[in-house]
Amino acid sequence: MIKVLMHGCNGKMGQVVSRMVDETEGMELAAGVDRFLGRENPYPVFESVEACDVPVDVVIDFSNAAAVDDLLEACAKKGLPVVLCTTGLSEEQIAKVKKTSEKVAVLRSANMSLGVNLLMKLLKDASKVLAPAGYDIEIVEKHHNQKVDAPSGTALALADSINEAMDNVYSYTYDRSQERKKRSDKEIGIAAVRGGTIVGEHEVIYAGEDEVIEFKHTAYSKAIFAKGAVSAAAFLAGKEPGLYDMSDVIQF
Amino acid sequence: MIKVLMHGCNGKMGQVVSRMVDETEGMELAAGVDRFLGRENPYPVFESVEACDVPVDVVIDFSNAAAVDDLLEACAKKGLPVVLCTTGLSEEQIAKVKKTSEKVAVLRSANMSLGVNLLMKLLKDASKVLAPAGYDIEIVEKHHNQKVDAPSGTALALADSINEAMDNVYSYTYDRSQERKKRSDKEIGIAAVRGGTIVGEHEVIYAGEDEVIEFKHTAYSKAIFAKGAVSAAAFLAGKEPGLYDMSDVIQF
Amino acid sequence: MIKVLMHGCNGKMGQVVSRMVDETEGMELAAGVDRFLGRENPYPVFESVEACDVPVDVVIDFSNAAAVDDLLEACAKKGLPVVLCTTGLSEEQIAKVKKTSEKVAVLRSANMSLGVNLLMKLLKDASKVLAPAGYDIEIVEKHHNQKVDAPSGTALALADSINEAMDNVYSYTYDRSQERKKRSDKEIGIAAVRGGTIVGEHEVIYAGEDEVIEFKHTAYSKAIFAKGAVSAAAFLAGKEPGLYDMSDVIQF
Amino acid sequence: MIKVLMHGCNGKMGQVVSRMVDETEGMELAAGVDRFLGRENPYPVFESVEACDVPVDVVIDFSNAAAVDDLLEACAKKGLPVVLCTTGLSEEQIAKVKKTSEKVAVLRSANMSLGVNLLMKLLKDASKVLAPAGYDIEIVEKHHNQKVDAPSGTALALADSINEAMDNVYSYTYDRSQERKKRSDKEIGIAAVRGGTIVGEHEVIYAGEDEVIEFKHTAYSKAIFAKGAVSAAAFLAGKEPGLYDMSDVIQF
Repeated sequence: MIKVLMHGCNGKMGQVVSRMVDETEGMELAAGVDRFLGRENPYPVFESVEACDVPVDVVIDFSNAAAVDDLLEACAKKGLPVVLCTTGLSEEQIAKVKKTSEKVAVLRSANMSLGVNLLMKLLKDASKVLAPAGYDIEIVEKHHNQKVDAPSGTALALADSINEAMDNVYSYTYDRSQERKKRSDKEIGIAAVRGGTIVGEHEVIYAGEDEVIEFKHTAYSKAIFAKGAVSAAAFLAGKEPGLYDMSDVIQF
Repeated sequence: MIKVLMHGCNGKMGQVVSRMVDETEGMELAAGVDRFLGRENPYPVFESVEACDVPVDVVIDFSNAAAVDDLLEACAKKGLPVVLCTTGLSEEQIAKVKKTSEKVAVLRSANMSLGVNLLMKLLKDASKVLAPAGYDIEIVEKHHNQKVDAPSGTALALADSINEAMDNVYSYTYDRSQERKKRSDKEIGIAAVRGGTIVGEHEVIYAGEDEVIEFKHTAYSKAIFAKGAVSAAAFLAGKEPGLYDMSDVIQF
Repeated sequence: MIKVLMHGCNGKMGQVVSRMVDETEGMELAAGVDRFLGRENPYPVFESVEACDVPVDVVIDFSNAAAVDDLLEACAKKGLPVVLCTTGLSEEQIAKVKKTSEKVAVLRSANMSLGVNLLMKLLKDASKVLAPAGYDIEIVEKHHNQKVDAPSGTALALADSINEAMDNVYSYTYDRSQERKKRSDKEIGIAAVRGGTIVGEHEVIYAGEDEVIEFKHTAYSKAIFAKGAVSAAAFLAGKEPGLYDMSDVIQF
Repeated sequence: MIKVLMHGCNGKMGQVVSRMVDETEGMELAAGVDRFLGRENPYPVFESVEACDVPVDVVIDFSNAAAVDDLLEACAKKGLPVVLCTTGLSEEQIAKVKKTSEKVAVLRSANMSLGVNLLMKLLKDASKVLAPAGYDIEIVEKHHNQKVDAPSGTALALADSINEAMDNVYSYTYDRSQERKKRSDKEIGIAAVRGGTIVGEHEVIYAGEDEVIEFKHTAYSKAIFAKGAVSAAAFLAGKEPGLYDMSDVIQF
């Protein structure tokens, strides 16, 4: 039985993760850490990882950047593997993550979704076959009307994943309306659609002669990041020190 | 039995239309006009509409701009309704089309596809219901990698059709990567995807709160323009003089 | 300002509707009715419509079949239009609904979603144009893995809507694996996909010669039924007695 | 420069392959074999592989079952690798293929499309990750209204490919309308849509908790089989004797 310590257990994502851990065979939510203690939790909640006196095997973190320094120090000290899902870390914190990973197993990823990370792997393989055969690559992403950045970080990560597999021959094109010219075979077009409350859709298109192959990922809620974190924790418990990411969790 | 005169009968589109006319119940290909007489046609072929001495009810034209002046004059003179599918007409020719339509029925449309023209009608109705209810509108079009213009004329025609129904409140957005800001509810995003040999796809998206409604048109070949022309000819035969377009053919 | 009485205000759907009413310009949530008073509501809550002494213009009901009889009687007595969203009514209750509609405006629909009801209308028009032109019609619906019935009631309602417009010439086909034969042009194929937590997707396909036209509806949550109910209430307030449904709300 | 002998060079597929070979860098169409000599070919055409006196490196075959015996014998005799694309072989012929492959390299596949064969490989990897994580698998295929069998051979091949990777735990479900029950996690639903002139679409869906991952292949013409054959020929030229298939061509 893998015992999980949920760091940020009373936050929105923390609650979703806690529920999922308890529904996962072979795992249990042993304890939580949160500065806000207002909720009645079915497990003991502590003010810090340091203060936690319940035995645990792995930490899942969905907190905020300000809480990450203490978290990393406590994990290193106690020898606890940690799945780090908090975003917006500073350069120094990223350096600290790396340093901590010399003492304990740390997993950190741009996107925690199992599906998106699986796609990144498959796209590398697909590109190696299809790009030399002359297939053009395009990405269309769709998000809600409150999103201010475009294209999405995940769309760029998917493109980067392809580009990395192909020796970075591709540049990215975001707008084709300004110039009358044919697309080059050295570009990946990335289009951003915005509307309503769409959680997140990413479609990668390989278009060849009379043939199109599409890979599409649709998220219906942020629960998919929770699910990825739980899979990552199951993977990380008992692992050697080192810096891992979601691609390590996905093995085929 | 509607007797059709195919103007440009030995061109690529002319051949497709001729075959379709013969496969259509109640229609027959009575004669053709073409400057290139190399093909063996199962019907008499003449050098001009003027020279044609076989009785016909309607003309379908897929020729070229240079041939249109003579065509219009001959139709007016002989009282022949004409479905004009040649593109790239000059301002003067468009004026001539209008003038000719005072004497005979002339049908001319930006896009001859039945499906696209049906969509234009339905989108007007959909927009009147969904736009006031707060649905965002976006269009994604996909074409082959040889196309130099973006977005496609059809994508713009679809957007214009929506805009017309909504008192032209919308502006069009082609690129969201240059500015960090939320979309406005007074814009229609139009994205252009280019790759392989894709003939033409158009997707109109209405995204609301937890709901998306999509209208998608896919063309697999240019035969759809031939099919539209044949429907238009069946509609036009026997009609009063006037200027018609594909929306008149689509009645529900 | 349309004043709404929410019947079943503390239920899951009641809470969603209440929030939406307050976010809708020209509407306000004036009072609620619920047997469960545990929640702190920002509006007065009564034990029955009968007991409500706050002036309201229209009732939205998301309760349960057992509560519907009292509701209908109170609405008739007080002259209150009512949007009836509770499902699973008995034959007698349906008769009572009809009777009540002689005294006040009552709106009741198989599916409260604005989008699905709009589609039903548009499909009638599309079918009248495309079916005579030889386009085959198919429906694919997708739902979560807990759904026991197939095809979905909404898929059947969409097919019925098409069939009604076409003089009921179509039969429905659910399985093509048992016989080696071509599809007839007098059938609508309806396929049911089941998996994960998919809330509900419906895709209606018109496939012709080298052309496909698709209409797709995607629900991301049951909030779309709440939204439909709010639109229905705005429509119903002040209407003459009679039995209405969502197609009356959708006017273009 | 790889010199290709096109077996069945004057057939429809033979002509498409010939054109593609000449457009492919590093390859040339050196000679053809066909019983029908009516066409003027830009390369020498012989009545049999036996009779061909032009040096070639590899044979591509799109002929008919009756011609395959002579072809195999001639290839074995001359030591010529052969890409065998003719379908409908008898049991004896399949045995002969195997025997021939002891002497020369022979490549034969159920589906010659690069894209479909790539998908088969990727689906194996995807299934190993997603199936244990609880994702349901469904397949939807779409074909023209003249197709008599359902589901398509390719849909079954895709399902088999997944099943093979997962120790054959899955059974296939073609109809959900006959029984009121939830889907099992040990089934793959396969739905067949038929309409118009759709060449062939295959969509494999992995549906998990609030997440859907889709893989879609669209064919716009049979040219994709020609393209696969050309890639296969480039792969096979110079290979050791043995029986190969398209999955050997796809290496990543």
